[in-house]
Amino acid sequence: MRLIALDPNLTVSEPIAMMNVEDCLMIGVSPGDRIRIALEGTAVSSVMVSNSIERGVIWMPVSVMDKCSAKSGDEVEVSYSPQPESIRSIRKKINGGKLDKEEIDSIVCDVMAGGLSEKEIIAFVSSFNVNNSDLSEVAYLTRSMADTGAMVDFGVKPIFDFHSLGGVPGNKITPIVVSIVASEGLVIPKMSSRAVSSACGTSDYVDTFCDVEMDSGRLRSIVSKVGGVFACGNEDYAPVGSRFIKAERPMGIDPWPTMMASIMSKKIALGTTHLLMDIPMGPESKIPDMDAAKAFSDSMIDLGTILGIHVECAVSRADQPIGRAIGPVLEAVECIRALENRDPDPYVVDKACGLAGIILEMSGEKDGKARALEIFRSGKARKKFLEITEAQGGSGSLTSDSLSPGPFWKDVHAKRAGFVQAIDGANLVAIAKGAGAPADVGAGIYLFHRKGDRVEAGDALFRI
Amino acid sequence: MRLIALDPNLTVSEPIAMMNVEDCLMIGVSPGDRIRIALEGTAVSSVMVSNSIERGVIWMPVSVMDKCSAKSGDEVEVSYSPQPESIRSIRKKINGGKLDKEEIDSIVCDVMAGGLSEKEIIAFVSSFNVNNSDLSEVAYLTRSMADTGAMVDFGVKPIFDFHSLGGVPGNKITPIVVSIVASEGLVIPKMSSRAVSSACGTSDYVDTFCDVEMDSGRLRSIVSKVGGVFACGNEDYAPVGSRFIKAERPMGIDPWPTMMASIMSKKIALGTTHLLMDIPMGPESKIPDMDAAKAFSDSMIDLGTILGIHVECAVSRADQPIGRAIGPVLEAVECIRALENRDPDPYVVDKACGLAGIILEMSGEKDGKARALEIFRSGKARKKFLEITEAQGGSGSLTSDSLSPGPFWKDVHAKRAGFVQAIDGANLVAIAKGAGAPADVGAGIYLFHRKGDRVEAGDALFRI
Repeated sequence: MRLIALDPNLTVSEPIAMMNVEDCLMIGVSPGDRIRIALEGTAVSSVMVSNSIERGVIWMPVSVMDKCSAKSGDEVEVSYSPQPESIRSIRKKINGGKLDKEEIDSIVCDVMAGGLSEKEIIAFVSSFNVNNSDLSEVAYLTRSMADTGAMVDFGVKPIFDFHSLGGVPGNKITPIVVSIVASEGLVIPKMSSRAVSSACGTSDYVDTFCDVEMDSGRLRSIVSKVGGVFACGNEDYAPVGSRFIKAERPMGIDPWPTMMASIMSKKIALGTTHLLMDIPMGPESKIPDMDAAKAFSDSMIDLGTILGIHVECAVSRADQPIGRAIGPVLEAVECIRALENRDPDPYVVDKACGLAGIILEMSGEKDGKARALEIFRSGKARKKFLEITEAQGGSGSLTSDSLSPGPFWKDVHAKRAGFVQAIDGANLVAIAKGAGAPADVGAGIYLFHRKGDRVEAGDALFRI
Repeated sequence: MRLIALDPNLTVSEPIAMMNVEDCLMIGVSPGDRIRIALEGTAVSSVMVSNSIERGVIWMPVSVMDKCSAKSGDEVEVSYSPQPESIRSIRKKINGGKLDKEEIDSIVCDVMAGGLSEKEIIAFVSSFNVNNSDLSEVAYLTRSMADTGAMVDFGVKPIFDFHSLGGVPGNKITPIVVSIVASEGLVIPKMSSRAVSSACGTSDYVDTFCDVEMDSGRLRSIVSKVGGVFACGNEDYAPVGSRFIKAERPMGIDPWPTMMASIMSKKIALGTTHLLMDIPMGPESKIPDMDAAKAFSDSMIDLGTILGIHVECAVSRADQPIGRAIGPVLEAVECIRALENRDPDPYVVDKACGLAGIILEMSGEKDGKARALEIFRSGKARKKFLEITEAQGGSGSLTSDSLSPGPFWKDVHAKRAGFVQAIDGANLVAIAKGAGAPADVGAGIYLFHRKGDRVEAGDALFRI
């Protein structure tokens, strides 16, 4: 049936279109059913039925118009769209069945094409939980997700990578780890992300001193030249992952099997052969305790085995921020100062060299952490850092003094003397975001003291 | 924020309301967020944002208006509605955790109150699957669901019941089983249902000769008087079950744990102490094979043990209709003719007396099936049937000749001779529905032959 598309100026969380009740009868759809809207492109949308909408028109938000390349006033072809075949596979999973490669491929393909509603994606993710999926299914999902995007072949093996589960603010170790590892001639194409709910993601602070957005061609050429990169992960690699996340986020769910597949699919896309997982453990992290850490590590290692990726896991405490700064410029400065060996926070050095050391040992070196520390202290890591920064369009003579935090600040002082017993990461993030981070790159919070420090009444505790 | 409610004349599958973008900003909601709309009653709805809607008004469909007792033009109070607490429990389940009584109660309570969206209900049902829930959780869910409705106390024990998983057309044995069991002085308050996707539910054909709709008071008084009833289950008992079904049906899912809880919650509401499960097994039924039948039976028996209900299971073949008639009046006639012993279909007698026999044995009788057959053949069952029918407002002198099928028919004849190899139940149901069943009570299909019968070319196979 041909209908005139009209824009009701509506912002919706999911594709939805509105039609007259008679028109709906003509094509045999009821409220909530799926319709296919086609012009040059094709959109699938659920339908709402109204008597107030005149016959012959279909109201749809701009997001749906865009999908079928239509604009207000265009005549579009509207038809009933049956449930996609992959719903059968989702039902099978809900009924406790085991899915094969074809079944998982069909689900991923329909998620990617927009053929499954958020409701259906949530049904899949909810049923595909730890007790109702096995690692061979997670491996199918991983490969299938990787297949939805670009695959980069750096033309060398091994390819190293590390991945932090996140949940700890102030994690500025990525450029340090990459620089140490790449100093040893190893290839480490590290993709990070921007803040989602945090005050500053790795890509947010790296963005203050060099480009993080790049296509796979530039990524490959930088890595070929300098061995490492600190780029921003984007929709080029396993893009279907963000569709899953879009459905999961409003419900605040992030179950292990889809999370693992999401992480690993991006590694598959980059040809990773050796992966170190950094697993911060703490009450606010995704991994609350040692039992969970052990279970998660075992699963990741086994999944890696199926996928042909050597995985090791390092569990760390997530009870306070890493270093002292939270916020893009503040974290960049702290990171670069550490590389310059200018009074670095011992925990930042320890964590970065610890992780880099494990990667060096995965490459066959002995006593990796000592070697990592040596590279760090000798200035070799800083040299490599500047090489990579320059390759990413930054300055090869960058120093920590090149960057300026915001011009306004306020210190908060201790009301009485004592020891710092605990630091509430969630509150620090809230304060840094309140100050404007990550959009205002100069904003953030800087801690003058860390857990266990003695403070006297009147001492500055932190600066906003 | 106070807004004027307007009716956009919209039919939707889920509560949804539309507001101006500025008004949304004022109360801090984004598209897809939940708002609370209050006047005398309270509705929770998700929100769509539009620039075309003027400030100060909120568009909402009649279903949402009704919920908050508002009508078009009324001023309603609109506010942001946070996710209900039970979402945490759903998340825990999705992450593979085990839920306790309080957590399951909170989910059921929020489903009942309309605080959880269909998306969230589907997430719960999908995660609460056989591999990710145990029977103690299913038992909590069962009791919690029963608590959402009326509880009937017949003042006696034991209370017998039987329940068929369905999936076989033409199942007209319920009044026969109830009549046999009640003839022995046992109490059997049997609740049936109307057709959902089939051509005729038990309540549809019973409705052709007596009342099936009754409140719990009338139910109790009929059962006290005559020992049995063939009533229609309604929203008085465990009404939350239909909310789950409403969310599940569009996706075509019906996972065991929620299905089991749904069945058992209605039994708990009636104080059932002894339950016989009739499990039709076949490619089109919910239980495809003997492995599934065994697993389901074991789960039901174990769940019964936790709930204090003695459960037995009888697995039967679901490869052809039970008896020859499909459609309300046709099934009623076949059922009553069987009770009158007028050339009954042997399979109908065998199945009804078999099930009744098991129930008699559950009550302590020996050789139940023989006793059931004796009651059936002696006319005692028919006498009890008429007593119950009269108690339900029907005629105490009802005969199978009292009911008339529709006046129009068409016979379909065999094109060549042979044996009836298979009967496709799904097609029979489609034909009976096409003829008008169950809404047109006289419509349906009648089989002149059953599986294994010899037919000659030109013989009538069935009548529509």
